[in-house]
Amino acid sequence: MTSFDLGLTTVRSAMRGLGATGSDDGDDLVARFALAVWSSLAEPGDSVAWKLVAAIGPDAALRFVERGSVSLVDGAVAAEVELDDLAQAVTRWQLRLEPRTFAAALDSARRTGTRLLIPGDDEWPRQLSDLGPHAPLCLWVRGVPGALGELEPSIAFVGARAATGYGEHVAADLAAELSGSGIPVVSGAAYGIDGAAHRAALTVGGSTVAMLAGGVDRPYPAGHAQLISEVAQAGAIVSEVPCGSTPTKWRFLQRNRLIAALSTATVVVEAGWRSGALNTASHASTLGRPLGAVPGPITSAASAGCHRLLRDFDVRCITSAADVRELMGLDGDAPSSVPPEELSAATRPRTDDRTRVLDALSNRVWRQVGDLGRRAGMGERDVESQLGLLLLHGEAERGAQGWRLLTSATRRG
Amino acid sequence: MTSFDLGLTTVRSAMRGLGATGSDDGDDLVARFALAVWSSLAEPGDSVAWKLVAAIGPDAALRFVERGSVSLVDGAVAAEVELDDLAQAVTRWQLRLEPRTFAAALDSARRTGTRLLIPGDDEWPRQLSDLGPHAPLCLWVRGVPGALGELEPSIAFVGARAATGYGEHVAADLAAELSGSGIPVVSGAAYGIDGAAHRAALTVGGSTVAMLAGGVDRPYPAGHAQLISEVAQAGAIVSEVPCGSTPTKWRFLQRNRLIAALSTATVVVEAGWRSGALNTASHASTLGRPLGAVPGPITSAASAGCHRLLRDFDVRCITSAADVRELMGLDGDAPSSVPPEELSAATRPRTDDRTRVLDALSNRVWRQVGDLGRRAGMGERDVESQLGLLLLHGEAERGAQGWRLLTSATRRG
Repeated sequence: MTSFDLGLTTVRSAMRGLGATGSDDGDDLVARFALAVWSSLAEPGDSVAWKLVAAIGPDAALRFVERGSVSLVDGAVAAEVELDDLAQAVTRWQLRLEPRTFAAALDSARRTGTRLLIPGDDEWPRQLSDLGPHAPLCLWVRGVPGALGELEPSIAFVGARAATGYGEHVAADLAAELSGSGIPVVSGAAYGIDGAAHRAALTVGGSTVAMLAGGVDRPYPAGHAQLISEVAQAGAIVSEVPCGSTPTKWRFLQRNRLIAALSTATVVVEAGWRSGALNTASHASTLGRPLGAVPGPITSAASAGCHRLLRDFDVRCITSAADVRELMGLDGDAPSSVPPEELSAATRPRTDDRTRVLDALSNRVWRQVGDLGRRAGMGERDVESQLGLLLLHGEAERGAQGWRLLTSATRRG
Repeated sequence: MTSFDLGLTTVRSAMRGLGATGSDDGDDLVARFALAVWSSLAEPGDSVAWKLVAAIGPDAALRFVERGSVSLVDGAVAAEVELDDLAQAVTRWQLRLEPRTFAAALDSARRTGTRLLIPGDDEWPRQLSDLGPHAPLCLWVRGVPGALGELEPSIAFVGARAATGYGEHVAADLAAELSGSGIPVVSGAAYGIDGAAHRAALTVGGSTVAMLAGGVDRPYPAGHAQLISEVAQAGAIVSEVPCGSTPTKWRFLQRNRLIAALSTATVVVEAGWRSGALNTASHASTLGRPLGAVPGPITSAASAGCHRLLRDFDVRCITSAADVRELMGLDGDAPSSVPPEELSAATRPRTDDRTRVLDALSNRVWRQVGDLGRRAGMGERDVESQLGLLLLHGEAERGAQGWRLLTSATRRG
């Protein structure tokens, strides 16, 4: 059985030049090294690996895999993981215990100025913890120090590789305007929408981050090598697999979850009916991240996926950078939460308190009484009595998460 | 003070050739004549006129206006109308008591084969009663007998006069497909989207109805005289003002309420930010009629109003005739009410009953327990116990109008 040398001298030498070694004490450094090894054993999103590492620490977990005997599993592990799942996973991981290949990956990382980030590092994006046991164990990063830690807020633009001129134009316009106002643009460095978004951010001198499915020493697609290198200079290129790793179908899908998790909100610019961008949208939706889609001509197959999102899901219709800012929660939502006069049949006279509660309610978002009180500048009891009247008149509804304005449109069902 | 002769001989002669006189007894005929006169006194949507007529009958109401003394108002009227409103309205109506002009309108109606329809006639569209006191008192119709009585179901297409080639193409495609399958197309005979929709219905030999803001003897716009004449031959052209009336701004806005009220659903194909089509959309929304909008390029000002509807209101995104049929409730909504696998995180195992209730729930439309029971083929108590579990797991929510599926997207707020 192959095994990794976790002796401090070896580890210190192996981790040289990969960032964050200055202040590490021995234990930290061994854990850091072990997490790096784990990124070569477990595929992205492997929750069994995450739980095992969380239960007993990365170096003990690595020793456990090398020992290979599931019967030796201790209580902390057994409480977290199904033993059958663990046994299968160990078999999978053992096939990848290759210290020599891993050493080559570290060499390539050093050559390309790639740093290792682990949870707890200053630059580690804390929003990734929303992924729970599907969070990455570590990240390999090339780029401006700190760029990855400054993605709150940030905006992800995703979409078709086979984008149209319209889609690329829209992606570039939106990305340039948001990036120019200081909001980093996250995408996947693919042809089409991704490339247009990164390029626009670079053009206006903004920060942009590319999440890659393979190693950061292997720009993919090859035709975007120059673009990816520029992204690394202005922001960061990031992967959860070590240098040298190939971008596989699975890794693309898992890369999408990182795009969704890193960003404040995700906007799909153009996407065919079965586009991979819908996978990113699905991750954003699962994570509770705001999701928007840009419409296009219904005669364009490249917009069919966006229209699907708009039609079948509660996805926001995006037509401008201002819409994106609102999606991200960066602007007040007053303009959209109160229907314009054209569509509101304000038939009943409004008392002052009634008006204030109505204005505090949204027709899209559920709000708690306390929140409504703050927005209306009223006490909760007064808010509640107005809400009761609105409920009686069919002008508001109560749900599990609070209160919402009932417009003619929402009442329709 | 000018007054109308309501003697039976005069009325019988006046109403000759305007339809529905064969079986009328004297009282009916006088009421019919009086309603026709009312359509020359009151502007469309005048709820004071409607209430006065409803309270004491059209001929007594007409006499009351001629007498002109609000102090003589009887109890039935006083219960329905504010006396101040009534006094103002009487002053307005009296200025229009012009028997000679009205006789000319009837002559023009006879010459153009225009028929008078009043509530209760076989062909009267009963769905107009949803307008309450804003319903028309009568309608002036040219066209195929019965066409106006066969608008359940029917579909309204509305949109910009200054439509683009894209908008006209989409309107024609959707109208042709629906009209070809036997669904009448309702619109306003304007340039742009309206014209494209009517024309497409005519091309496939379908029925189509044009609601006009002025008299049906005065095709407007003049450039559509030929189209409007063809619509009258294949369906109907309709107005609530008598022949000879000019189409005013107010009458266009009120005409829009009739388009919305007559149709099962309304689809906005292209509309600028402040397009009149949004007024029709507003009427449809107020009436609880399903409302859809066709997206277009966000770079096109002609789609800005549609995107506004999609963004700020719960308006359905329309990309095909199938979407319109679903909007109208003509197809089952199963395909959209259960999210596609890509966007549903079906993590928990599903028991049989749980699956059936989940499948019966919609993420867009609120459903009552009884309705869910029918869809799931289960008893209400079993449905309720499953709903309780779904509520606990945050997978469904209860509102004033029933239950709804909570998807990641709707949960987001």
